[in-house]
Amino acid sequence: MLSKENISEYFKTLQDNICQALEQTDGKAKFREDNWQHHGGGGGRTRVITDGNILEKGGVNFSAVSGETSEALQKQLKLTEKADYFATGVSIVQHPVSPMVPIIHMNVRYFEMSNGISWFGGGIDLTPHYVNDEDAVWFHEQLKKICDQHDLSFYPTYKEWADNYFYIKHREETRGIGGIFFDYLKPANEIEKEKIFAFVKAVGEVFAPIYTHLMAKNSKLSYGEQEKSWQMLRRGRYVEFNLVWDRGTKFGLETNGRTESILMSLPPIANWVYDYQPDPNTPEARTLRLLKKGIDWI
Amino acid sequence: MLSKENISEYFKTLQDNICQALEQTDGKAKFREDNWQHHGGGGGRTRVITDGNILEKGGVNFSAVSGETSEALQKQLKLTEKADYFATGVSIVQHPVSPMVPIIHMNVRYFEMSNGISWFGGGIDLTPHYVNDEDAVWFHEQLKKICDQHDLSFYPTYKEWADNYFYIKHREETRGIGGIFFDYLKPANEIEKEKIFAFVKAVGEVFAPIYTHLMAKNSKLSYGEQEKSWQMLRRGRYVEFNLVWDRGTKFGLETNGRTESILMSLPPIANWVYDYQPDPNTPEARTLRLLKKGIDWI
Repeated sequence: MLSKENISEYFKTLQDNICQALEQTDGKAKFREDNWQHHGGGGGRTRVITDGNILEKGGVNFSAVSGETSEALQKQLKLTEKADYFATGVSIVQHPVSPMVPIIHMNVRYFEMSNGISWFGGGIDLTPHYVNDEDAVWFHEQLKKICDQHDLSFYPTYKEWADNYFYIKHREETRGIGGIFFDYLKPANEIEKEKIFAFVKAVGEVFAPIYTHLMAKNSKLSYGEQEKSWQMLRRGRYVEFNLVWDRGTKFGLETNGRTESILMSLPPIANWVYDYQPDPNTPEARTLRLLKKGIDWI
Repeated sequence: MLSKENISEYFKTLQDNICQALEQTDGKAKFREDNWQHHGGGGGRTRVITDGNILEKGGVNFSAVSGETSEALQKQLKLTEKADYFATGVSIVQHPVSPMVPIIHMNVRYFEMSNGISWFGGGIDLTPHYVNDEDAVWFHEQLKKICDQHDLSFYPTYKEWADNYFYIKHREETRGIGGIFFDYLKPANEIEKEKIFAFVKAVGEVFAPIYTHLMAKNSKLSYGEQEKSWQMLRRGRYVEFNLVWDRGTKFGLETNGRTESILMSLPPIANWVYDYQPDPNTPEARTLRLLKKGIDWI
């Protein structure tokens, strides 16, 4: 039987492997680790990387926490009464130095309630400062490949879910070129639980090969001040999404989670310019036109 | 009788006067004006200043909009059925170049529903990057003075309200040294309406003398890289407050308000450093210790 301990041990190892891969590709910076306790029980292992050759600021966080459901949590889970919960996962955001390297996010998580209900969730999405079609297609192909190995309905369903989830409503822009997002995958029995876990593992394990490829490939490209300015504005949008719309961030901040671990997702520097409109025939304007829901990259 | 047109005309003039005073004290930058229409009716006059001698980025916005209450608005106002609303106000945020000059926010507003209910709201609060006790006391004295001219209960009540409102819950920090905040001041009759409006006018009119004084006094102070870095981190906190907790911002973004006008409150540049802790005996640490509710500055 697949226990919550098995799952959380797996996530710890996944964190180790991803940190190692990122450090190796970056070639300079090392992760700093902070261990912390959760007020309700359990805790986490926050790992933050800064000032690398390729990675400017990012986190690869593991946590396994438990407690009694707060009012906010009961509301979010539509529970009618209090229960104990256990939640474990790995959560990643990386902000690269170069505007030619995309920002990436990945999360895999498992939730278990004392009433016996449990579910998995997760996702990967890519936020290029400049959309590179070749990379975008390749990225979605990698995701489709691992989805298809588990269920042919996964990629189209979870791709659409990502388009809807990673959406900056007040800008009418997607955060980036999307990816996959899934939640509340509730196994009805042990066999199903193993199957869903196998899929979640595949999502976690595809992260490092995808991102180290994009890091290595794009960090060699040259860029100038214009590209750097645009990166700062796109990071501003990333902040807006995470603080205004991201359910995970909102939930963490409202339920007294560890603020510094939750907000590792914020960029080192971000800019806001009033009503900035790129000229129509620029790569910046082209990128903006591609930040839309429903683009079939493959 | 005091009509909504009277109030909104007054707010327009207030915007003019404040812009003039800020431009004069800044001595370099001029406000750029954008006129816009609201999807429900009415519109606004957004004025943004950038790259001044003293002001790096800020807005002085006027709006007078109307429409049918959306679901979000009905919820926020605890209405049981749809109604038409009219809302007008002036809203200001200024981010100065120098870390020695505080960030300021001011808002005065009037709301009227088709069911006959109307109310005023508003406030001023100051966010110094470094708390200067003399300025903090002086700032609160100015607010107390105009409050006391209208009602002796106003300053203590609205000062406490500001402490609670301008609070970054996930940081357990106040945004700055507070000020005054008030909302839902509902007049029971015309005489009361005139009285409340007189108070709201006094709040609006005390803004320019207060901030131009603080601009002129503090922009002469020298500072270095350390102060500049700290300013960038405090601006990050300002972003966190506005995007996560500020009811006005939340409401605007959720109800399809004009995004660029709402988000003029965001700084031109902000930084986030993972788990930054100032050394205990520094001015930065001292400021952090003073970002608490319930400090009686006077």
